[in-house]
Amino acid sequence: MEPYKHTVQYYETDMMGIAHHSNYIRWMEEARSAFLREIGWGYERFEKEGIVSPVTALDCKYRRTTTYSDVVSIRVFIVDFNGIRLRVGYEMRNSADEVVFNGHSEHCFLDEAGKIVRMTKAYPGFCEAITEYIEE
Amino acid sequence: MEPYKHTVQYYETDMMGIAHHSNYIRWMEEARSAFLREIGWGYERFEKEGIVSPVTALDCKYRRTTTYSDVVSIRVFIVDFNGIRLRVGYEMRNSADEVVFNGHSEHCFLDEAGKIVRMTKAYPGFCEAITEYIEE
Amino acid sequence: MEPYKHTVQYYETDMMGIAHHSNYIRWMEEARSAFLREIGWGYERFEKEGIVSPVTALDCKYRRTTTYSDVVSIRVFIVDFNGIRLRVGYEMRNSADEVVFNGHSEHCFLDEAGKIVRMTKAYPGFCEAITEYIEE
Amino acid sequence: MEPYKHTVQYYETDMMGIAHHSNYIRWMEEARSAFLREIGWGYERFEKEGIVSPVTALDCKYRRTTTYSDVVSIRVFIVDFNGIRLRVGYEMRNSADEVVFNGHSEHCFLDEAGKIVRMTKAYPGFCEAITEYIEE
Repeated sequence: MEPYKHTVQYYETDMMGIAHHSNYIRWMEEARSAFLREIGWGYERFEKEGIVSPVTALDCKYRRTTTYSDVVSIRVFIVDFNGIRLRVGYEMRNSADEVVFNGHSEHCFLDEAGKIVRMTKAYPGFCEAITEYIEE
Repeated sequence: MEPYKHTVQYYETDMMGIAHHSNYIRWMEEARSAFLREIGWGYERFEKEGIVSPVTALDCKYRRTTTYSDVVSIRVFIVDFNGIRLRVGYEMRNSADEVVFNGHSEHCFLDEAGKIVRMTKAYPGFCEAITEYIEE
Repeated sequence: MEPYKHTVQYYETDMMGIAHHSNYIRWMEEARSAFLREIGWGYERFEKEGIVSPVTALDCKYRRTTTYSDVVSIRVFIVDFNGIRLRVGYEMRNSADEVVFNGHSEHCFLDEAGKIVRMTKAYPGFCEAITEYIEE
Repeated sequence: MEPYKHTVQYYETDMMGIAHHSNYIRWMEEARSAFLREIGWGYERFEKEGIVSPVTALDCKYRRTTTYSDVVSIRVFIVDFNGIRLRVGYEMRNSADEVVFNGHSEHCFLDEAGKIVRMTKAYPGFCEAITEYIEE
């Protein structure tokens, strides 16, 4: 899959003259969101069925700064999925192909009652699709 | 009523070294939110009853810049309320008591079906409370 | 010029289930930023020369709501430019081609000392480029 | 030191009806910022001297959700400081005193040339002040 592209916006910069670190969390979501849509399982599909998928954990390493008008390429991959907890990885590169950021996010899936959904049973197609993108 | 205080955060600054203009829209909401809570009609009360109050219009004049760690005092007042459309005014001052921003927001009230609520009938207490803060 | 496209992100929604109104101010900036880059006068070019261009005023009409995964098309045009103050217009449409938002922003240009720059003298090329996009 | 208080804003909620996870990163900064100001070493003091302190790493565990109008109490503590790299810890609690979030951030200190500052030499007073808040 092609990496997701994000152009750094002026409103994302801070007084250090760089993209504020909190925005990378949002770019992780943008890229994950596009990734899931591309494999046919966009959030909009889950939300129609009353399934939400909150973030339960995050970790981030900021390796280089980015700034206004930089184009950041974001590669999304699956680290691990046991049918309940999904762990997603992210590598962001600048236009010189240098790594600027590495991070991970963890997600669970909840039904309308707030109960954890066992995706293997409820959405086997999703599990299959996800499994293809697992990287060692 | 005492003005609402907002301390400018680092993440609200941009590469010009000032608070990004989009944040003032959020500070308007913070101050309006605190104002409504103080007169006993916080959004949380409306939302419990299935009433939402989207913003239908905005206007803003940026008079002076603010930056990280500045404390901004925000005075909220009612410009006009006809029972359907609420127009709110905002004046923001820095710690030297200089006006940094003037703005207005317009709101309607919608029920769960997305229909406009005539507040005069549905919430006469709200209308009374609001009317006290109308300024010419 | 082709309208600028913005896909509504999950982090831009609020508990009403719609894109929060403050984000449209940021989309105005995204679209203006892309517009200026396309006519050869991106902010990065001005900033290199020590010129900044703060927003001095805004007005917005919210006509329809948008939500997660909607693609918003943003047309940017120039309302007025007297060489000192630039007034920009925005029309945003959803994928059904319905107008969701109209707005304007006003900008001045400041040099490193914070003094207003008379663009007609300092940047005649910019003024010419801008003038082409004035709409009555 | 008293925990820092943050009231969850409407613009911080998302369509799940909860505070979007990216905001906790900003609250970490708010609380850290207030903490440093309180011990006499606010960012504004460093920035005057040309020292900036970017975030180099983050990790977060989201334990419970929060939503609009919730008051979150944020305790800041120092995990480790070797004079070059500062590791800060955060525990956030809701008004029922339940832990909603745990996280850490890592920071370095850079001078105007972008070189790492050895704080032990350059700012011994800062190092002393920080050391008092180290928790095992």
